[in-house]
Amino acid sequence: MNVEFINPFLEAVVNVLKTMAFTDPTPGKPFLKKKGEPSQGDITGIVGMTGPVKGSLAVSFSEAAILQVVSTMFGEDFTELNGDIQDAVGELSNMISGDARRMLAEKGYAFEASIPTVITGKNHSISHTVVGPSLVMPFTLGEKHPFFVEACFEDKREGTPTAAR
Amino acid sequence: MNVEFINPFLEAVVNVLKTMAFTDPTPGKPFLKKKGEPSQGDITGIVGMTGPVKGSLAVSFSEAAILQVVSTMFGEDFTELNGDIQDAVGELSNMISGDARRMLAEKGYAFEASIPTVITGKNHSISHTVVGPSLVMPFTLGEKHPFFVEACFEDKREGTPTAAR
Repeated sequence: MNVEFINPFLEAVVNVLKTMAFTDPTPGKPFLKKKGEPSQGDITGIVGMTGPVKGSLAVSFSEAAILQVVSTMFGEDFTELNGDIQDAVGELSNMISGDARRMLAEKGYAFEASIPTVITGKNHSISHTVVGPSLVMPFTLGEKHPFFVEACFEDKREGTPTAAR
Repeated sequence: MNVEFINPFLEAVVNVLKTMAFTDPTPGKPFLKKKGEPSQGDITGIVGMTGPVKGSLAVSFSEAAILQVVSTMFGEDFTELNGDIQDAVGELSNMISGDARRMLAEKGYAFEASIPTVITGKNHSISHTVVGPSLVMPFTLGEKHPFFVEACFEDKREGTPTAAR
């Protein structure tokens, strides 16, 4: 995975959560996930990306983390993962992808994004089937509520920037 | 959702399962899913699509259905959803997307596909956050093992074919 792809996603997560949820997430240390090692969350937004290489972005929250984010976004207490929260996760994933793609385009890598798909289910696991590694960027909100962003890109052609748009 | 987009996915599911898993799935009646009405599965491959419109494809199996498919594909008995099965679901999703995109390209709609993401977790639900409806294509394998394919596309610009590639 091209290292130039990492920072735009880290920055986009912080930008979007600050702007939309008035929340300042604490980044943990990003790590490369081994093949066959699934990551787990309770609600996950998935955005496919196409461009100089194929990719995929997963933004995955623990239930506690997304309830905190959405309660702050909407200024009311949410206590369960309902349709409003699914919509919010789709929208946050879309915005994180959009902000990261804006920064990637400035570096010469022009990506397009698919419609976000949202998965809800206690402790589901997320995996990718490509040969390239997945980068996991863990964050915490407040005291201990975890969430993470996982980006996965094909390895081929990654060194070739497309024209910036 | 452009009705021309439906048949390529229906045909692709049957083609890929026949070719890869020597299995002839029985199509049920496709239906449009209302917003906020989640579909549920135990293992789901998700492929994002970009092109004349943005889209997303979810190929979602009950545990019984995917164990049957993969046992037939590999000629050995699988009894739990392990890493090999996650890989197989990613690969089947990729192939279904690829076969459908080949047919869509022949109609003048050229789509690109993202890396597949695979979600595993008992009874997780799948939703999309766009305004356009999702089309659910239910299938059964053998006596009663259900699986379904869900395709979702933005409504805008859908009437404008791109150049076939």
